[in-house]
Amino acid sequence: MHSQLSRASSKASKMNFTLNVLGTASALPTTERYPSAQVLDVRGRLFMIDCGEGAQIRMRKAKVSFLKIEHICLSHIHGDHLFGIFGLLSTMGMLGRSSVLNIYAPGSFAPVLDFFMTHFGDGIKFEINHVVLDMSEPLKVYENRTVELLAFPLRHRVETFGFIIREKMPSYNVHKEAIAKYGLTVAEIGRLKAGEDVVRSDMVISRDEAAYLPYEPRSYAYCSDTAPFPELACWVKGVSLLYHEATYPAEMSEMAEKNYHSTTLQAARTALEAGVGRLLVGHYSSRFPSVDFYLDELRTIFPDSDLAHDGDVVEIPYIRNL
Amino acid sequence: MHSQLSRASSKASKMNFTLNVLGTASALPTTERYPSAQVLDVRGRLFMIDCGEGAQIRMRKAKVSFLKIEHICLSHIHGDHLFGIFGLLSTMGMLGRSSVLNIYAPGSFAPVLDFFMTHFGDGIKFEINHVVLDMSEPLKVYENRTVELLAFPLRHRVETFGFIIREKMPSYNVHKEAIAKYGLTVAEIGRLKAGEDVVRSDMVISRDEAAYLPYEPRSYAYCSDTAPFPELACWVKGVSLLYHEATYPAEMSEMAEKNYHSTTLQAARTALEAGVGRLLVGHYSSRFPSVDFYLDELRTIFPDSDLAHDGDVVEIPYIRNL
Repeated sequence: MHSQLSRASSKASKMNFTLNVLGTASALPTTERYPSAQVLDVRGRLFMIDCGEGAQIRMRKAKVSFLKIEHICLSHIHGDHLFGIFGLLSTMGMLGRSSVLNIYAPGSFAPVLDFFMTHFGDGIKFEINHVVLDMSEPLKVYENRTVELLAFPLRHRVETFGFIIREKMPSYNVHKEAIAKYGLTVAEIGRLKAGEDVVRSDMVISRDEAAYLPYEPRSYAYCSDTAPFPELACWVKGVSLLYHEATYPAEMSEMAEKNYHSTTLQAARTALEAGVGRLLVGHYSSRFPSVDFYLDELRTIFPDSDLAHDGDVVEIPYIRNL
Repeated sequence: MHSQLSRASSKASKMNFTLNVLGTASALPTTERYPSAQVLDVRGRLFMIDCGEGAQIRMRKAKVSFLKIEHICLSHIHGDHLFGIFGLLSTMGMLGRSSVLNIYAPGSFAPVLDFFMTHFGDGIKFEINHVVLDMSEPLKVYENRTVELLAFPLRHRVETFGFIIREKMPSYNVHKEAIAKYGLTVAEIGRLKAGEDVVRSDMVISRDEAAYLPYEPRSYAYCSDTAPFPELACWVKGVSLLYHEATYPAEMSEMAEKNYHSTTLQAARTALEAGVGRLLVGHYSSRFPSVDFYLDELRTIFPDSDLAHDGDVVEIPYIRNL
């Protein structure tokens, strides 16, 4: 699958927003599915999300640069989301990395990192900054000029977090026609650029008439591993692309509940309630060598659903408004 | 490569002696080479040797049973020989393993195992028996009725061990013609079966005339990572198959010396001095996407040399004497 979220697309690679799916297995990998790992490329800045065993090798196959990884988000400290971190950090060290690496992970990652640094950290000459996650609702943990990263709690057997990576809202562009028509002042143009209406004593010039967004800001949410819970749809509301675990098919809802996982239908319901642009599921039970039947279940509830497969590259296009 | 060591071969799969090469990378894996890991199948009993990242996934591809692994030999505690152990142990736990797993490893493996059991050991219901290696010359660390495992020190930057897995010498069969010709007594037949000559007051009946081995006992030696040293050839003398690291080509001997590794020529010289049946090399520097030129270098010294590649299955045939 090398697909596009929406009708329009731009070739401007500097503006890309691209998800590399490196692994879609749950606890037991299969010959076709590596454990959970993804890399989101936002305009050339790379966010890694989970780091299951073999992630570094999948990254090489996907031609993802190790040194461009600035941030690693670890949802929880279960091996199938984590055991690739040792090899990846070692490789970064051997490649001569010097820039800071931020790792957003629960407090339970601290002894894991300590262990690694004590026994295998000789070659690590770069700073590893463990940002401890312990929020109870979505909280911004990183931002730069154009992008922000939020983390929020999920509901799993151990402390687990989801992530949202989104472009910041850009300044509005003001229509030249509106400037002429209303004789807009510099202050009024500033207000419109900030997304506000212009309120004069005798009239209101609405932002939606006089200005437009230069492009649609894009967003990605990652939810794995989790049982469904009411707040989740609010927290990921309106994201362009939602990755949600669907470990089990619909009929295995009891198993899902017992293990704090989700079924296809539960993932699709969250996508529907959240009004996301598109749903991508993964983290499949190893019981099912083929999960094609998951797709039919998903689409009964949320038609814009797809199955993630190892090696998938999913682009969210840059839509420029003219 | 799916090759045979010798001229004769038996189809008797119960008598197999088969090496599965799972990874041939050195410190940095490539898209074609996983880190070091092998499984030797001796008559259906599996010995794993080193366990680099991704080993469990390579095992699935090679259709190697996780549950039949009785022994894991870890040469040393460097990540590229070890980082697959966490995922493999976890998977064994999830598959319901109950039988003891023996891990032959240096003492420096103890904190690694402690870490794993403390943070990821919940699902491990089987006993893990860490046999601490600290010998200064070859020592038997395990044996059953037909096979024995020896460990011996290598010369690397950290404490490192090599391994020999070999079939025990079988009892000799006595030729029926010799029994008739010499009127052999039960005691004399016993002596011949044990491999001794029969010494009578008036004559010596030589074992080689009166008896024969029912089959040639096979042996495998694993030497990675190591600089060359004088005792090594004696220790692996006459093995059917020697796996020896050849991280570097001949021209990089200074780099090899500095890093306590071997070149092609050094590996081949050890094979020649040891008079092994065949040499297989691996643990290639990631500098060289193709190592085909290593083979020419090896064969200038030891013609029965081959390059190991990920996924290779190397059979040492069962040669039955009739």
